[in-house]
Amino acid sequence: MFEFSLEATSGAARAGTWRLPHGVVETPCFMPVGTQGTVRTLSPRDLEGCGATLVLANTYHLHVRPGEQVVERLGGLHRFMGWARPLLTDSGGFQVFSLEGRRRVSEEGVEFQSHVDGARRQLTPERAVEIQWALGADVAMAFDHVVPGPSDRAAAADAAARTRRWLGRAADRFAAISRAAPGRQTLVPIVQGGVFADLRREALAGVLQGGDWRALAIGGLSVGEPKPLMAEVLDDLATVLPPALPRYLMGVGFPEDFVAAMARGMDLGDCVAPTRMGRHGAAFTDEGQVNIRNARYRDDDAPLDPGCDCETCGGFSRGYLRHLFTAGELLGLRLLSLHNVRYLTRLAARAREAIRAGTFDGWSRAWLARYRSREQA
Amino acid sequence: MFEFSLEATSGAARAGTWRLPHGVVETPCFMPVGTQGTVRTLSPRDLEGCGATLVLANTYHLHVRPGEQVVERLGGLHRFMGWARPLLTDSGGFQVFSLEGRRRVSEEGVEFQSHVDGARRQLTPERAVEIQWALGADVAMAFDHVVPGPSDRAAAADAAARTRRWLGRAADRFAAISRAAPGRQTLVPIVQGGVFADLRREALAGVLQGGDWRALAIGGLSVGEPKPLMAEVLDDLATVLPPALPRYLMGVGFPEDFVAAMARGMDLGDCVAPTRMGRHGAAFTDEGQVNIRNARYRDDDAPLDPGCDCETCGGFSRGYLRHLFTAGELLGLRLLSLHNVRYLTRLAARAREAIRAGTFDGWSRAWLARYRSREQA
Repeated sequence: MFEFSLEATSGAARAGTWRLPHGVVETPCFMPVGTQGTVRTLSPRDLEGCGATLVLANTYHLHVRPGEQVVERLGGLHRFMGWARPLLTDSGGFQVFSLEGRRRVSEEGVEFQSHVDGARRQLTPERAVEIQWALGADVAMAFDHVVPGPSDRAAAADAAARTRRWLGRAADRFAAISRAAPGRQTLVPIVQGGVFADLRREALAGVLQGGDWRALAIGGLSVGEPKPLMAEVLDDLATVLPPALPRYLMGVGFPEDFVAAMARGMDLGDCVAPTRMGRHGAAFTDEGQVNIRNARYRDDDAPLDPGCDCETCGGFSRGYLRHLFTAGELLGLRLLSLHNVRYLTRLAARAREAIRAGTFDGWSRAWLARYRSREQA
Repeated sequence: MFEFSLEATSGAARAGTWRLPHGVVETPCFMPVGTQGTVRTLSPRDLEGCGATLVLANTYHLHVRPGEQVVERLGGLHRFMGWARPLLTDSGGFQVFSLEGRRRVSEEGVEFQSHVDGARRQLTPERAVEIQWALGADVAMAFDHVVPGPSDRAAAADAAARTRRWLGRAADRFAAISRAAPGRQTLVPIVQGGVFADLRREALAGVLQGGDWRALAIGGLSVGEPKPLMAEVLDDLATVLPPALPRYLMGVGFPEDFVAAMARGMDLGDCVAPTRMGRHGAAFTDEGQVNIRNARYRDDDAPLDPGCDCETCGGFSRGYLRHLFTAGELLGLRLLSLHNVRYLTRLAARAREAIRAGTFDGWSRAWLARYRSREQA
């Protein structure tokens, strides 16, 4: 269980499979985000139809509402949200550090005010493990200290060091709690270190010394830093990451960023972009982003993306989708969200195919040129 | 085409089939309402899964946005909304008469201000036929003059007389326009007359003299009048309606009202209740209405309605559905809408079965007693 097998590489890009309690995940893999135990507007059946295999849910959000005890009483997160395939829960770190002005960090953990009812609560490395164990996802994340993208070296070093100390505490708690059901869940550490390659390497070394992990996550990127800096960090990390473990680049999932991440050896990504952009009427297509509200689509009988095999593209014209958005109909939010999630899972599947064929570099260049063709036209 | 065949009766209740260009409709039949060319939150696939056969769309709404020419250019209403089964469009009469203070009635028709852009427009019996022909539903409705439920005799008589004059003009226009494709659409007249049995009878006689119809509609009920008055009108009409034509009671579709209508020989009904109530967290069940936001459902692992076969009841607990509503998740609106639509289509199917077995009266009494049991408890 939790075994990763690397099947092919093409440059730094990798194709593999990751065995999880609720199923096998083919990588590269894009994870749709189900913040509150639902990928916004989509049903589990929709997600299956999109080819999603691993879905992310949010520890912070589920902890404050409805509470992990409720989820546990209702059969655990899989049963609660009606999703039979693998699940990953983040640690809540990213969310509580985003509560600017409503949280206080100490060595013990983070004290914060719930955005739902204002109640004071505390998340610690141990609590994050306990909550995630109660939720019961296949993959749990260690509680980390996230700093904003533009943070200076001192702040990044401080957060990375704290993340490492917290990892030890999380690992101890996880070892104790998981003894009863060892194949149920794996705990994944997060490598921090901001945009500083040496801090990242140091953080990685610390993580690798700290336990026998089944996967590694790279956190604190795509949080406001300039994009070239993220690429530099990943390029450097790619040379030192152990090949045997799957690599999860947290929060990355706009099509261009996701392709760039796969090119740098990342195996897993997640992002709210497909659903959030979809709810705003923006659709990913092979020719770049389409804003379906645009008047030019009023009489357009073509599907959103002629190359796409999703329910939206198979059944509805751009003209109809535009009508749904101008008329304020909820079905529009859903159909665009569905298409966007399918776009990302299909992008991962196409990349996987290219990697297995040894043609990732050519494929990704061609994809990018076409993806940017509209904006350059 | 458009042939109705009466298969069984049980008391005044009737079971039949109505042959339409896009499929055969078994009656009694509940029609979900797709006001703007979409049954709110539901996809055509969802509706098929719910067993919906005939869906209603709204002439007024589609005329003001996106405009019938757009729908026509995009292949007609069936293709536009991705619905392959039968469609019915109302005439727009009900909507323009609801635009209190923004419409002026004359013998020619109704001048109104669009609720979308404030533009002045006119609907006439002829225009309503033309718009509906462009939309291309299987069934079109004649443009009628609707008065509020509590209207006095003079107002009801005036509106019924105007509705009859308008019917002549609609029939003439429809005869001319449909000559090119006679099996494509049928025009259905609407019997008005308020809550006055003699006016209703007179209106019916006028309608029957006015053409060779394939169905009859009863309009202007369930518009604010006391419920016993509606029952009286229907009881009286049931004795004079020709048995060979299907009868569509417009706007009726809360479960209790729909059962009462079927008991009085009505074959078709429509209502926004399933989707509107669903979006507000109210679900129809065999034990009455459930408000899923209620705290009592927080830890409830049971489905919404244990007897229901819909996707919502098959896959999700009340506790999860409550979570979706308290968390403001759009999936909740969809799952309750879906269940409610299924509840009504299943109610029609169960009634049909009882009618064919000759046990409608017993079945409907038992259904009603159980449906009211919770509120009486």
